Amino acid sequence: MLIRAPMHPLDKDTTLERLSADRLAGRASTYYSNFNGTFGGFTAAVLLRAVLDDPRRQGVPVALTVNYCAAINDGTFEIAVAEKRTGKSTQHWNVELRQGETVAATASVVCGHRRAVWSHHPAEMPKMLPPEQVPVFSGFKPGGWTSQYEMRFAEGEPDFMTPREDGDIRSARSQLWMRDRPERPLDYLSLASMSDAFIIRAFLARGKFVPTGTITLTTFFHGNEEAMRAQGTHPMLCTADAHLFADGFADQIAHLWGKDGRLLATSTQVVWYKE
Amino acid sequence: MLIRAPMHPLDKDTTLERLSADRLAGRASTYYSNFNGTFGGFTAAVLLRAVLDDPRRQGVPVALTVNYCAAINDGTFEIAVAEKRTGKSTQHWNVELRQGETVAATASVVCGHRRAVWSHHPAEMPKMLPPEQVPVFSGFKPGGWTSQYEMRFAEGEPDFMTPREDGDIRSARSQLWMRDRPERPLDYLSLASMSDAFIIRAFLARGKFVPTGTITLTTFFHGNEEAMRAQGTHPMLCTADAHLFADGFADQIAHLWGKDGRLLATSTQVVWYKE
Repeated sequence: MLIRAPMHPLDKDTTLERLSADRLAGRASTYYSNFNGTFGGFTAAVLLRAVLDDPRRQGVPVALTVNYCAAINDGTFEIAVAEKRTGKSTQHWNVELRQGETVAATASVVCGHRRAVWSHHPAEMPKMLPPEQVPVFSGFKPGGWTSQYEMRFAEGEPDFMTPREDGDIRSARSQLWMRDRPERPLDYLSLASMSDAFIIRAFLARGKFVPTGTITLTTFFHGNEEAMRAQGTHPMLCTADAHLFADGFADQIAHLWGKDGRLLATSTQVVWYKE
Repeated sequence: MLIRAPMHPLDKDTTLERLSADRLAGRASTYYSNFNGTFGGFTAAVLLRAVLDDPRRQGVPVALTVNYCAAINDGTFEIAVAEKRTGKSTQHWNVELRQGETVAATASVVCGHRRAVWSHHPAEMPKMLPPEQVPVFSGFKPGGWTSQYEMRFAEGEPDFMTPREDGDIRSARSQLWMRDRPERPLDYLSLASMSDAFIIRAFLARGKFVPTGTITLTTFFHGNEEAMRAQGTHPMLCTADAHLFADGFADQIAHLWGKDGRLLATSTQVVWYKE
């Protein structure tokens, strides 16, 4: 008798139904949900999956930009995929997610043929105690996307319980071990989602919630499929920080490091904040 | 008699002719040219300009992603502009540049209403001698896009004349003062172009040319129009670096700092290299 493991929520909830060569149907995730709609990392993953599942795809994802146009509400959505250009080394895609008449998100995906040519890795992974020696963070309210990740903070652990004075502004930097919960072997899908799985930096700097939302996210994937497989379910060393919060728009920079100090993804985003 | 200053090449060459509400015509620049077609910074600027010139535009540019699909050759091109979503605080655009039947570049632009709310600037500008004390670099061959910029390197000055052994790999980091040549008051257009005006990092690391091309570029604009005006024609302090060169794809990270240590733009790109 074959006993099949239950499908991981990330795989299950990003499953798309093909309507035609260029159109797919999906559904907002209850696992990867946010207080104001769908978690941006899920949106990134499902838009990437639309390209990953396309029979015309050549190579592996190298870059993904997601523009968050409107909140994605419960229920179904439709994704339109357009192959813009296929060259010898790279392939360019545009993707668009609609809910009813509303364009809720647009994305561009660049795929590439990675080849065993000259390589060089000057960037150095920060030092950190091994995951076993850093306690798992348990301060999130259960439910929603934060329950889908195991996080172990060495720096910049969120703390929204200790009252803080208004002018008490602290570092926006976090350093943590992170992996999917339940565990799941790393692939481009989980990297895409994880690249948005950092608490909004303004919350950390200010110690309080303010109305906020990611408006655009760009993630670069730096490894081939072998590098993904080598990582397996081992936690990734992640850092997230912000350069500035200016006139209602902040940035966020994230680095996701794999085994042996190998950088597997880098990500930048712009976050709108109301006040 | 009114004596009018000649139009700056960046303004002149990014001028677009409106064909309809959603379509514009332009022409490849002879000033901002590259050895294999058009300079990527020019492409970024002209795609941004298509949105800047649109009467439907609300707010100022906050983010720009350009995907380089094919070389842009001499002659004319057409740009299609699509307003994807306009909200209270942000506006999302898709732009596409075609030469004949070929999609040569796609872009997404996010505009936003910057407002005088809580702001905070934790990032610190690197220290550097003032521009007057750093000599202007004169090592580029005359002509093409490098002639359109005045660069003063404190670190990572290109040197392709001194022979180097194959295994002699050096730092990919540059730090320089840069401004438009001829001088031109800073605006979003020049920032967009300048964010790609760094020598390919692989050339610097390896001390030799290899076939290469930017495949995607994302630039975030961190200031409002007042911050642009405050900068004027003063050189910007710029840094450019790479995390890694892996399997034929490298990244590049750039920071463009304005007066008083204010970060005005950050940019990341993926560069394909052949060998």
